[in-house]
Amino acid sequence: MPRLRPHQVPRGFRFAATSCGLKKKGGLDLALIVSAAPATAAAIFTTNRVQAAPVLLSREHVRRAAAEMRAIVVNSGNANCSTGSVGMIASRKTAAALARELNCAPEQSIVCSTGVIGVPLRVDKILAALPRLSARLSSSAQAFESVTRAIMTTDTQPKWAAASCRIAGRTVRLVGCAKGAGMIHPQMATMLAFIVTDAAIAPALLRRALRDVASRTFNCITVDGDTSTNDTLAVLANGASGASIGAGLSRPVLSGRDGRRKAAPTDYGRFVTELEKVCRSLALAIVADGEGAQRVVEITVRGAASARAADSVARTIANSPLVKTALAGADPNWGRILAAAGRAPLAPRERFDPERVQIWLAGIKMYARGRALPFSEKLAHRKMLADSVPIVVDLRGGKGRATVWTCDFTHDYVTINASYRT
Amino acid sequence: MPRLRPHQVPRGFRFAATSCGLKKKGGLDLALIVSAAPATAAAIFTTNRVQAAPVLLSREHVRRAAAEMRAIVVNSGNANCSTGSVGMIASRKTAAALARELNCAPEQSIVCSTGVIGVPLRVDKILAALPRLSARLSSSAQAFESVTRAIMTTDTQPKWAAASCRIAGRTVRLVGCAKGAGMIHPQMATMLAFIVTDAAIAPALLRRALRDVASRTFNCITVDGDTSTNDTLAVLANGASGASIGAGLSRPVLSGRDGRRKAAPTDYGRFVTELEKVCRSLALAIVADGEGAQRVVEITVRGAASARAADSVARTIANSPLVKTALAGADPNWGRILAAAGRAPLAPRERFDPERVQIWLAGIKMYARGRALPFSEKLAHRKMLADSVPIVVDLRGGKGRATVWTCDFTHDYVTINASYRT
Repeated sequence: MPRLRPHQVPRGFRFAATSCGLKKKGGLDLALIVSAAPATAAAIFTTNRVQAAPVLLSREHVRRAAAEMRAIVVNSGNANCSTGSVGMIASRKTAAALARELNCAPEQSIVCSTGVIGVPLRVDKILAALPRLSARLSSSAQAFESVTRAIMTTDTQPKWAAASCRIAGRTVRLVGCAKGAGMIHPQMATMLAFIVTDAAIAPALLRRALRDVASRTFNCITVDGDTSTNDTLAVLANGASGASIGAGLSRPVLSGRDGRRKAAPTDYGRFVTELEKVCRSLALAIVADGEGAQRVVEITVRGAASARAADSVARTIANSPLVKTALAGADPNWGRILAAAGRAPLAPRERFDPERVQIWLAGIKMYARGRALPFSEKLAHRKMLADSVPIVVDLRGGKGRATVWTCDFTHDYVTINASYRT
Repeated sequence: MPRLRPHQVPRGFRFAATSCGLKKKGGLDLALIVSAAPATAAAIFTTNRVQAAPVLLSREHVRRAAAEMRAIVVNSGNANCSTGSVGMIASRKTAAALARELNCAPEQSIVCSTGVIGVPLRVDKILAALPRLSARLSSSAQAFESVTRAIMTTDTQPKWAAASCRIAGRTVRLVGCAKGAGMIHPQMATMLAFIVTDAAIAPALLRRALRDVASRTFNCITVDGDTSTNDTLAVLANGASGASIGAGLSRPVLSGRDGRRKAAPTDYGRFVTELEKVCRSLALAIVADGEGAQRVVEITVRGAASARAADSVARTIANSPLVKTALAGADPNWGRILAAAGRAPLAPRERFDPERVQIWLAGIKMYARGRALPFSEKLAHRKMLADSVPIVVDLRGGKGRATVWTCDFTHDYVTINASYRT
C-alpha cells in the first residue's frame, strides 16, 4: 500500500496512537483523532441487539453533540462488551478524561472499542495513557498511519483511503481508516471505520450522505454473515477547508440503490462521490483482508423482480459456505451458486425461474436455459485463481439489481477462528 | 454401528443395490426398495426453487399414487439437476423401465438422484443395471444394508435406524436409511431419507405424521445452512403387519412444536413416537457425519417470546461460522453465541434483552445479567472436546422453546468442499 502523502491529510485534524497494554502481544492499541474546531459528526452503529458499552455511549454523544464533535478515541484488544455496568463506567471515564485533556465536554467525543467480548476493560491503562497520547497529537501523515495500525485486531494490514475534490474554489480533503477482518456483514457489522474531512456540512446532510454511501459500500460486504456488538462507522467534518457543502441547496442530490444519480452533480453530489470512493475502498480492503481470504468475490445479481430481491439473492450466494469453499479451491462449481440463489428468501410475488436464470463465473457463462453450458474447466480454474473473481447472476425477470462483495472461505479462516481466545 | 437384525426388517419389503458405473471411483451407486403390495406413500421434498428432475417427477408420482406406491429407486454419483429436458426424460425412462420390471405403472415409484449438479445423467447405465438389480431383490437385512451404502456420497458411513411397537396385538416394524453430510439445513435440504414400515395407514394420516415428525427432526438439523436441489424424505407403509393405524380414529393425536403431546397416546400416537425415533436417529446421524464434523452440537433456546422466535435464535447460532469454528477448537467462546443470538431475525414485538439472557455451554453457565460469569476455561475446554456438546440459551422473556442440532466447522469441511469436483 502506498504511503499517505502530507497534502492528502484534511486540514485541522491531529492524530496519535500509543501502546497502553491492552493487547496481549503488545503493540499499538490506543488511537486518538482530534479536530481543532468543533466538527459535524454522523455515525452508524451495529444493529445487533447486543451492543457494547462504547456503542451505547457514542450513540448518545452523537445525538447530543452532532454539530460540535471534537474527537474519536479507540482502543483495540478489548471490546468492552458484556462487561456489565462497569463497562459503561469505563467508557464514560474514558470520555471524561479525554474531555479534560481537550478542554471540552465528554459528549464531544466518540468512544470505540474492539477486541475480545466479556473480559472487563482495564480502563486504568487507557486513563494512564491518555496524557501522553494527547501530547503526541500531530497532523502528520505518519500520525494518521499510526492510528490505522492501532485499531487493528486480526487484520493483517492497515486500511486507509483518501480522496479530494474542488468545491467553490477550495480543496476539500477526506481521509479514512478501517479495521475488520471477520464478522463482517451488512448493517455495520464488526468493523470500525473513521473518516475525517475538512468540508463544512450540516449534521442532517452529513447523516444523509453517510447512510446513502454506506448502503452501497459497507452494507454490501460480508465475510461470514456474522455481525458484531461494536461496529461503528463515523465521519467528522470540521469545515477547515472553508468549503461548504449544500449551502443554500434546495433539493439535495440523492442516489438510488442502483447507483444512478437522480440529478446533475452539485456540491453535495461531488462530496458524496468522494465519500463513496473512500468508503468503497475501505470496504473492499476489509473484504480482501477477510480472515484467511485469498480473493475478493464480487457478486452481481440483475434481472430480479426488485432491488430488494436482487440483494437477497446476492447475499445468500455471498454467505453460502459451499460457494465460498468452492471459491477457495478455485472450483468452477456454478451448481452451488444456482442452489444458493434458489433458496434465497424472496417474497411470493418475486418470481425466480431456474429455466430463465443465467450464471457467469469469472467472466465465463456457465449456465442458461436450465442447463450447464460447455466451458473449459481448466481455463475457468485459472481465471478463478485471480485476486478478484466476479459472479454475475441474471434472473431475467425484472430490473432489480444489486452487488455485494465477499471473500473465499479457507482453511486459514478456520485456523484463525478456532483458536482466537485459547 | 451394530448390524440390522433380520427380525427388525418390516414384512413385505425387498431391497437391492448394485454398481452401475455412475460413481467415478466405482462402488454401489444404484439402490432399489420394493414393496410386494401397493403401499401408502408420503414424501417431503426440497423447498429450493431449483429442483432436480427426479424431485419434480416424484412429487407428481406421490400425488397420483399415494395409496399404491410400489418402489423407490435411487442413484448416487449424479443429481440429475440442471440437466435440461433430457434430465426429465432420464427420470421418466427410469420410472418406466422399473415399472416394466415390477409389472406396475410408472407413477408407482419414487425416483431419486444425488451427486454432482449439471452433468447429464448416463441413464443408459441405470437402465442396463435395472434387470440385475431387480433379480437381486431380497428381504434380508444384508440387502437393506447394501441400500444404505449405495445412497452415500460424501458420507463417511451408512446411516440407518429401526424401531417397532405393538399395535392391536401385532408387531409393527419401521426401518429407515439416510444419506447427507453437507448442505444440510431445515426444510429438507440436501439429504435423502427413506423409511419403510409394515403398518397400514391412510395417505392423509401418514402425510400428517411425516410432517409432524419432520418438523422436530430433519427440519431441526443444519450443517452449513445450504439447501439442495434434490432432497427427499419418503415413507412407504405397506400394511403387511396386519396392524392398522388410526382406524376409526376420530381425533388424531397431534404434537406441538414443543414436543408435548396434546392427548393420550393412541395407535396413531404410538406410531408417531416410533417414526420420530427413527427420524431423530437418522437426522442426528447426518449431523454427526457432517462434512468434517468432530462433534454434534445441540442448541436449545428457551424463554423466547414464541416458538418461532426461539427457532430463529437457535438457527442463527447454529449457522454462525464464528460459533462453529470456535466449537471446532473447543473454545468456550460464549461471546460469539451471544452475538449470534443478538442478530437473529425477530419480529419487532419479540423482546430480546441482553441483560436477561443466560448462556450455558457444555453444561457450564457462562453468561448472565449482561456479563461473563467466572468459570474454569480448562474444564470448559475439556468438556467441549466431547462428541456431543449442548448449548442452552435462556432469553427469560417468554415460553417459546426450540432445539436444533448442528456440528462444528473444521478444516476438513473446507478440504472436502474446496475440492469436490476438480
